[in-house]
Amino acid sequence: MAGSCSSRRRPDWVSSWSKIPSLSSWWHGGSTRCPSGATGPRPTASDMVGGVIDFGHVGLQVRDLDRSLAYYRDVLGLRVVERGVRSDRYLADITGYPGVELDIAVLETPTGVLVELLEYTNVVGEPVDTATHNPGTGHVCFQVEDVDAIYHSALDAGHGAVSPPVTPTSGRWTGGRSVYLIDPDGIRVELVQRGPSPDSLGG
Amino acid sequence: MAGSCSSRRRPDWVSSWSKIPSLSSWWHGGSTRCPSGATGPRPTASDMVGGVIDFGHVGLQVRDLDRSLAYYRDVLGLRVVERGVRSDRYLADITGYPGVELDIAVLETPTGVLVELLEYTNVVGEPVDTATHNPGTGHVCFQVEDVDAIYHSALDAGHGAVSPPVTPTSGRWTGGRSVYLIDPDGIRVELVQRGPSPDSLGG
Repeated sequence: MAGSCSSRRRPDWVSSWSKIPSLSSWWHGGSTRCPSGATGPRPTASDMVGGVIDFGHVGLQVRDLDRSLAYYRDVLGLRVVERGVRSDRYLADITGYPGVELDIAVLETPTGVLVELLEYTNVVGEPVDTATHNPGTGHVCFQVEDVDAIYHSALDAGHGAVSPPVTPTSGRWTGGRSVYLIDPDGIRVELVQRGPSPDSLGG
Repeated sequence: MAGSCSSRRRPDWVSSWSKIPSLSSWWHGGSTRCPSGATGPRPTASDMVGGVIDFGHVGLQVRDLDRSLAYYRDVLGLRVVERGVRSDRYLADITGYPGVELDIAVLETPTGVLVELLEYTNVVGEPVDTATHNPGTGHVCFQVEDVDAIYHSALDAGHGAVSPPVTPTSGRWTGGRSVYLIDPDGIRVELVQRGPSPDSLGG
């Protein structure tokens, strides 16, 4: 599909892996930015009935909530806004596990986006192979101040990473830093850090 | 940990599964809201070096990007802001797959939060069992205008759900609607919808 929609030249320092303030105020690089309709029918919340109006949270199912909470709180610095055990009947209905009990922590980024960690305490399944080439897996990405600092903190605390931090050579994070950390359940946690500002590159 | 920090009485209609404007402006229910320090050491981006400053995106690794893109665009109504094939060397480094080629779509909610769908085109793994009691799995939650409408649209389009929509009996979404849909790779997509306003309940 890349290239199937009209493309525009863009400064090298701009790409797409970011919130996009508006359709017209950004150039997008790394792959082709598709104008309205170019990728086929594209209903939005404004022209379909009942659609998405806001992000709720990203949820990660974990084996040991205390262990995962320590990781997201102490290694990444997310703020804990909630912790509790829930066994409401409606949770059993929507999750599909009769009598389920969930130990849940909710954390938030400084910008207010929520990350929910859930331990199924009484219906324990089998850990999945979280390698990202396996369909059905997920990852979560955070922008951080210092990728290398967090990477070293994670390793010092006994956690893993897919590789040492690298310097992206394309896209929005060109000249910055990026890494895939590995959380206690194997879930990949992508960190990204801005490179030098466009101005300092003469852009 | 639930109940280990001080609790306050709260109106029944208020809970925690939401963005929280400030520590003091919300009552949280369903489980116990923990004040600063009550859950142990809790560094934040402001008092640790290099921590999270913003949410980047939630990423879902999928088997067939066209199939998944249709789901998130046409069933849920997310807006496509990017589509392209990438094989930059640094992506091989951070993902850990030499020579990897990724077909990627980026969608956004009306509030600008990004969802990245990734198909590993030349290093295909094994689909994981996405049942949420399996540690290492994830889910993603969106607030929608009409849970039942989206649920029926999803079923009409041949997709699945864990159960029909239910009415939460606790938490922020009390009296509203909620459901776990199942995306084309089995990933659970939680939808939530507000209930009647507190005023209309006499709260």
